[in-house]
Amino acid sequence: MSGHDYDTGRMNLPFVGISTFGKRPYVEDWSAIDADIAILGAPFDGGTQFRPGARFGPRAVREASTLFSFGHGGAYDHEDDVTYLPSDVRIVDIGDADIIHTDTAQSHANIASGVRAILDAGALPVVIGGDHSINIPCIDAFEGRGDIHILQIDAHLDFVDERHGVRNGHGNPMRRAAEKPYVTGLTQVGIRNVSSTAKDGYDAARAMGADIVSVRQTRAMGTEALAARIPKGARVYITLDIDGFCPSIAPGTGTPSHGGFLYYEVLELLQTVAKAHEIVGIDLVEVAPAYDAGDTTSVLAAQVLLNLLGFIMHARRG
Amino acid sequence: MSGHDYDTGRMNLPFVGISTFGKRPYVEDWSAIDADIAILGAPFDGGTQFRPGARFGPRAVREASTLFSFGHGGAYDHEDDVTYLPSDVRIVDIGDADIIHTDTAQSHANIASGVRAILDAGALPVVIGGDHSINIPCIDAFEGRGDIHILQIDAHLDFVDERHGVRNGHGNPMRRAAEKPYVTGLTQVGIRNVSSTAKDGYDAARAMGADIVSVRQTRAMGTEALAARIPKGARVYITLDIDGFCPSIAPGTGTPSHGGFLYYEVLELLQTVAKAHEIVGIDLVEVAPAYDAGDTTSVLAAQVLLNLLGFIMHARRG
Amino acid sequence: MSGHDYDTGRMNLPFVGISTFGKRPYVEDWSAIDADIAILGAPFDGGTQFRPGARFGPRAVREASTLFSFGHGGAYDHEDDVTYLPSDVRIVDIGDADIIHTDTAQSHANIASGVRAILDAGALPVVIGGDHSINIPCIDAFEGRGDIHILQIDAHLDFVDERHGVRNGHGNPMRRAAEKPYVTGLTQVGIRNVSSTAKDGYDAARAMGADIVSVRQTRAMGTEALAARIPKGARVYITLDIDGFCPSIAPGTGTPSHGGFLYYEVLELLQTVAKAHEIVGIDLVEVAPAYDAGDTTSVLAAQVLLNLLGFIMHARRG
Amino acid sequence: MSGHDYDTGRMNLPFVGISTFGKRPYVEDWSAIDADIAILGAPFDGGTQFRPGARFGPRAVREASTLFSFGHGGAYDHEDDVTYLPSDVRIVDIGDADIIHTDTAQSHANIASGVRAILDAGALPVVIGGDHSINIPCIDAFEGRGDIHILQIDAHLDFVDERHGVRNGHGNPMRRAAEKPYVTGLTQVGIRNVSSTAKDGYDAARAMGADIVSVRQTRAMGTEALAARIPKGARVYITLDIDGFCPSIAPGTGTPSHGGFLYYEVLELLQTVAKAHEIVGIDLVEVAPAYDAGDTTSVLAAQVLLNLLGFIMHARRG
Amino acid sequence: MSGHDYDTGRMNLPFVGISTFGKRPYVEDWSAIDADIAILGAPFDGGTQFRPGARFGPRAVREASTLFSFGHGGAYDHEDDVTYLPSDVRIVDIGDADIIHTDTAQSHANIASGVRAILDAGALPVVIGGDHSINIPCIDAFEGRGDIHILQIDAHLDFVDERHGVRNGHGNPMRRAAEKPYVTGLTQVGIRNVSSTAKDGYDAARAMGADIVSVRQTRAMGTEALAARIPKGARVYITLDIDGFCPSIAPGTGTPSHGGFLYYEVLELLQTVAKAHEIVGIDLVEVAPAYDAGDTTSVLAAQVLLNLLGFIMHARRG
Amino acid sequence: MSGHDYDTGRMNLPFVGISTFGKRPYVEDWSAIDADIAILGAPFDGGTQFRPGARFGPRAVREASTLFSFGHGGAYDHEDDVTYLPSDVRIVDIGDADIIHTDTAQSHANIASGVRAILDAGALPVVIGGDHSINIPCIDAFEGRGDIHILQIDAHLDFVDERHGVRNGHGNPMRRAAEKPYVTGLTQVGIRNVSSTAKDGYDAARAMGADIVSVRQTRAMGTEALAARIPKGARVYITLDIDGFCPSIAPGTGTPSHGGFLYYEVLELLQTVAKAHEIVGIDLVEVAPAYDAGDTTSVLAAQVLLNLLGFIMHARRG
Repeated sequence: MSGHDYDTGRMNLPFVGISTFGKRPYVEDWSAIDADIAILGAPFDGGTQFRPGARFGPRAVREASTLFSFGHGGAYDHEDDVTYLPSDVRIVDIGDADIIHTDTAQSHANIASGVRAILDAGALPVVIGGDHSINIPCIDAFEGRGDIHILQIDAHLDFVDERHGVRNGHGNPMRRAAEKPYVTGLTQVGIRNVSSTAKDGYDAARAMGADIVSVRQTRAMGTEALAARIPKGARVYITLDIDGFCPSIAPGTGTPSHGGFLYYEVLELLQTVAKAHEIVGIDLVEVAPAYDAGDTTSVLAAQVLLNLLGFIMHARRG
Repeated sequence: MSGHDYDTGRMNLPFVGISTFGKRPYVEDWSAIDADIAILGAPFDGGTQFRPGARFGPRAVREASTLFSFGHGGAYDHEDDVTYLPSDVRIVDIGDADIIHTDTAQSHANIASGVRAILDAGALPVVIGGDHSINIPCIDAFEGRGDIHILQIDAHLDFVDERHGVRNGHGNPMRRAAEKPYVTGLTQVGIRNVSSTAKDGYDAARAMGADIVSVRQTRAMGTEALAARIPKGARVYITLDIDGFCPSIAPGTGTPSHGGFLYYEVLELLQTVAKAHEIVGIDLVEVAPAYDAGDTTSVLAAQVLLNLLGFIMHARRG
Repeated sequence: MSGHDYDTGRMNLPFVGISTFGKRPYVEDWSAIDADIAILGAPFDGGTQFRPGARFGPRAVREASTLFSFGHGGAYDHEDDVTYLPSDVRIVDIGDADIIHTDTAQSHANIASGVRAILDAGALPVVIGGDHSINIPCIDAFEGRGDIHILQIDAHLDFVDERHGVRNGHGNPMRRAAEKPYVTGLTQVGIRNVSSTAKDGYDAARAMGADIVSVRQTRAMGTEALAARIPKGARVYITLDIDGFCPSIAPGTGTPSHGGFLYYEVLELLQTVAKAHEIVGIDLVEVAPAYDAGDTTSVLAAQVLLNLLGFIMHARRG
Repeated sequence: MSGHDYDTGRMNLPFVGISTFGKRPYVEDWSAIDADIAILGAPFDGGTQFRPGARFGPRAVREASTLFSFGHGGAYDHEDDVTYLPSDVRIVDIGDADIIHTDTAQSHANIASGVRAILDAGALPVVIGGDHSINIPCIDAFEGRGDIHILQIDAHLDFVDERHGVRNGHGNPMRRAAEKPYVTGLTQVGIRNVSSTAKDGYDAARAMGADIVSVRQTRAMGTEALAARIPKGARVYITLDIDGFCPSIAPGTGTPSHGGFLYYEVLELLQTVAKAHEIVGIDLVEVAPAYDAGDTTSVLAAQVLLNLLGFIMHARRG
Repeated sequence: MSGHDYDTGRMNLPFVGISTFGKRPYVEDWSAIDADIAILGAPFDGGTQFRPGARFGPRAVREASTLFSFGHGGAYDHEDDVTYLPSDVRIVDIGDADIIHTDTAQSHANIASGVRAILDAGALPVVIGGDHSINIPCIDAFEGRGDIHILQIDAHLDFVDERHGVRNGHGNPMRRAAEKPYVTGLTQVGIRNVSSTAKDGYDAARAMGADIVSVRQTRAMGTEALAARIPKGARVYITLDIDGFCPSIAPGTGTPSHGGFLYYEVLELLQTVAKAHEIVGIDLVEVAPAYDAGDTTSVLAAQVLLNLLGFIMHARRG
Repeated sequence: MSGHDYDTGRMNLPFVGISTFGKRPYVEDWSAIDADIAILGAPFDGGTQFRPGARFGPRAVREASTLFSFGHGGAYDHEDDVTYLPSDVRIVDIGDADIIHTDTAQSHANIASGVRAILDAGALPVVIGGDHSINIPCIDAFEGRGDIHILQIDAHLDFVDERHGVRNGHGNPMRRAAEKPYVTGLTQVGIRNVSSTAKDGYDAARAMGADIVSVRQTRAMGTEALAARIPKGARVYITLDIDGFCPSIAPGTGTPSHGGFLYYEVLELLQTVAKAHEIVGIDLVEVAPAYDAGDTTSVLAAQVLLNLLGFIMHARRG
């Protein structure tokens, strides 16, 4: 955000200013998005099966993102010797989809509208949840826009078809995605331990085109080999459940599961995929600030997202 | 819970043992309730408009209730010189209603089933929420069982008719109750500051038989005068939103509002009403442990509930 | 914030959307303020003598203010039967003054610039701290704009002249204010217990025109009598240190002091003063979220501020 | 603590320096106590029946006491127009009694040794617990030193004789004290709600000379009348359980009980008693920092203690 | 827990229902245990040398265990392609041993009674502490039931013989165990950094048959080699101190020590040992919820225990 | 601290006693330091660019250090088979430098005075921050005492020259150090992700003699190779920013950055350097307890410091 009259510039430290994502401009009018990347909050947590609170995820990730906003013209990474997200990368924050409490269907519909608005504007949609059910409307919004492959990083398979009539909770999104004709496959990474998906869910996932890889299997094969399992040329949608990470760095989530990924494992996978594939959409879900003492989880989410966006734009312009 | 073989008795300190309400017996079979009072958990928080987490209210209140469970044959109160809840008062904990995430209607229906099971058994239903929307199925369960008057203690009027199609969230229960032919009136106490109910909601409430009293108005008139506003002979259902209390003693709730009641104000109102009226049902809602550092809110809920049950049983046997 | 294309309206629940104060419009250009009231954040806490963290006060108070933002056309208060802050009251949030770490003078200067911009626009400045030292530049900004009387609500006198060269920390602001020729007097309310001001500071304060009143003295005389001690016709600047309140409702502050005010005591004093005097400026300081488990302190700050603004605008239009 | 070579004085703000009580000198050699007042920590919590953690009470209260240590030559109170604890009042901190885990008897014996050392030195012993069982060795140390009357401020009667062989837990101290021939009576104030003492304990207490007064009874009679119930001329030992206070200002304790005292109620009772009686010993117990988000409980303990010591020394010198 | 009348089945999400371990049946009568595995809580923390609070470990681990209780007929692990703990594995929760505060000996005796009751019933005892001293009565209960080898996973050696008369605190259990004629050896894994055991304790341990291995030594040799150091054919008792893990995933403990094990290191060691040896008893100790922001430690404890029980039963039925 | 009259020895458990560093003697008179090692607190956090609170770092690290203080005559490490810090190693705690709020220059000057006092006494200075700006006066104090090489462990380069006039905040210290003629070089380890130092800062650092190594680069080359990059014979000053560690073990800091070092990586680097070089000074900075739920960060700081001091003294006496 630009200067005031008292000075020709701003120090604009991370603790100063309104918390939009990365302190980027807020665009309230969804018909006026003009950007490379647009951030949408999806503060819905009605789909959770244990601890709720992910509805405050968008606010927490936005606030944490300011930690990395020192007002330089980009983010210099000395390991890559690259300045990511230079000032001509246009990122906007379009606020949150409207959530209608007690009404999952309408809340999801509103999220889908936001994603469609971003796609219609030709920008990359980046959706911050909210629980993982918000992936359902995100994927819905891609209907009629070409085939996509889903890369899921998560502790849980989220492949339940239906239980007691529930088809759109946070245990269902990958099943819903797999049913779409334009979803050509899924790579499900980090999956471990018991969850709401029972054995028949795993069988169904594999039958419907899923490639399921655990944390230990990922480590055994390495990042490159894992990335190579995504079909060449696939347009990739990334859905990142923060509980894919180890609870040591991501305690602030509803259903933590020990044995998850450490930071560089995910970062390097994302960097590799961003180089090799067109990334068409992103959601990051399940950050629940009420359980995030010290805010390390929201810092993790912001750090991963900002780096991933840097990798994507660097690859595009490469 | 009775003795083990290593001893003829138990010390059974508050931190020892499975956390049922008051360490009373757990009755899993809802067709076999044989008790004066039955506790039901209603861990639904899909109706919240700000901070969720009340789904963990039943567990927190149960655990806090153990603080007051020293294994005496009753609870001696030196101010009243009465031993409340002597050992022949039969309290059981029937566990929780089943919550179906993403499905408000079915979750509510399951809560109503639990309350009906208690009523069918001739026991007093005491429902621990969950958000205030769980009052809706509680009141539903009273259909066909005679007229009731509702005493609500709350910061918020909760009298919204419908917004964006929402009729069963935590801003709607008193409106839903007022619509019932067997709800003959409402006394709404503690109401203050802005909330989801706008001016037209207040007008409608008054038109539908509500008596709305703020905290300051209550203080000005006194407990006796307030209690006297409840029609003589009315069978009273008490719905106690923990945010009716001051946030100083009830911080662990979704929508705290400063200026609420202190402890004795509510305690004495409940004691007065319990003496003067038949109490036919109780719910206590909106305890959200994730915001309750030090657990003082759940301790408050447990302390109020146990005292209220003591007052009711003492009055019945008086 | 107005509607999106998916609907003709918004539910816009408190947990949804970018956290500006009261979800009011953000005005980045300080030369384009066109409003009745303008909110400025002053996230400076370099003046603290115990626990820092008030730099995150503006963000916390903004986020808490959303709890009271249900999208009605105003805030209906059933006790007063008034709808405060109707939709034609124009409130804007102009973001934060730029803080230069390690440099108290420049940080203060930037805050003064913001207040001057608001005053130049003819709007009421409402500054959210930050520690109490930010009152110094706020009062500086009133130079040349007529006489003012200061009403301070605080646990501490803040009347230290100089210690070890420090003249602009959070123990000094009232002394600095009293030195201004255009500050005609001070009413210092809530003062209690030991603090950084020693006995000679009290003597100096009284000599320089201060009226010092403790919490118990306030209670003994009553709100009306206290308000009457402010000179008739005085244009009043209100500086509200959150530690003027009891730590039971304001634990999230740097230097809590037991024995403070309860909610209605302050609310009614503010309402009385707002009716009787022109209020020319406001600051609310020392909310430190790191110590505010459950967020009750920031909720208190937001609730008091929104009510005070309602009282002021109601009186102006009365 | 005195100056360093870099300056002739110190600012010595509350967050600076080693945390002894009030930043007073630490005296390690218990045979060399030369002071008016000596502080002893008694970090034993093996007597708790619910939440432990009071073993960290001494450290927390010491650290909180620094908040009120601004290095003035005393603490000026503008309400009383008195500077309490002027620099010639000699307070020392003699550290903690040695606690032997798993061994209540030896831990208690070590505490008694510390109190005896203070009494032998002619200083006023001020013991910071630990749980309330540490009152037992404190009272033991008074054997052979003349009659005393005990003023207890507490939520709980603590008058259990023996349960399952337990005679020295935190539910027993007042019974143990009442058994001493040199304890001539007890005034037990703030007692309320259910606790480990059953009805027969109340009966026994009264039979053994206890005067039991609840919070509401105290309010009804007033501070003066309550203080007058302590026999004239009695040498008074004060035992202050922090849970005598309302959980709103004292959440950080093991067994919180709602309905407790507010700040001034206790402060004024202590001031009145300190004027009318010789105070011969003090313990303050049950501060458990693990449950004290925001540190308001330890601040309360430090604030009450420092004021009480001021009242006592002022009365002595009066 | 089985169905209610409103439905033929339950969704029974993790946040719903009474918190027994894994939501398994509660068996109050210790003479009526009929199960493969029986869970006993041992909420004693009187043996701690730093932060207490492990008395709430049993409740916290039970509640965390519900996160993994989705009501499937077993827990499917896609990495092993095994459904562990199918519905015919009978697990019961027998509640807690009775703790007598201030009395270590009697508290320990009550724990031993519980373990004997489980062993007499032919079930596998799984004891949740409490501090590590509760291992002492656990091992006592094995007297006369054949030789056992102890596998300890821990940061600390816990091999102090006696200090100041203390022989049964949480620094002593392995010494006490080594003294038993039926304890044929110890494998002590994860031991690191300074603790209450001094050099002479290490010497004594080795002299009494202990094999001491640090975290780095474990990593250097690998899981298989480590497991091979346990004598072939040994019947193994596993004692798992949660502080054997890295504080990053186990902050909620009394004496955290950096440099501990990560999740899979322990899991794989347990899996290997469960395959190669008969496991005759388990205790998991030192989970202290008051220090466990985000509940990741209790989730870890529950996750490890449930997996270990699965490995054991799978091996038995192999 | 030595024994009292009640016993010839002390158990002196970690939770007992005044919190000086390692429970070592407090030396108030800075002209009377007679020790091998002297600890100085530098509680200044006015240089922070995000979350403040490091002013409470010295107190927190001191208190955490007591966890490792069991009163043995040294700390036995079974992996090295060495008893570190035997009783003849003389460590003293000289308290804190005086901080003058709002005045960075004077606060820094006071810190420099303390370090000079230690150096003048021939002791090793160990300074606990405070934010990283306190390194500036620490390095200042080495003027005229021979050449030094700086080993920095940190997430951030801290090499900003000047922004908006700020030259002495926590983003500047390494630049200030590099400007000193007696600083012959810098080894900057752990540097990663975006921070207040932009690309030109990296260029300048390298031009001024810095060797910049990331976490991943360190892992790739190994500890030995990294240590070998420090010039042979260099006298090394170690500055350890706690955010050099992974936020999983160091959440309690102002600007956490994911991807940091784990415990043994830093420990082994320090051990290697302590063997190969004379260590002339140490600072450990940026521990901010307000964000350190569970106190794991302060435990880490204490554990690393105590081990490092052991390594240094062992090498000196080797």
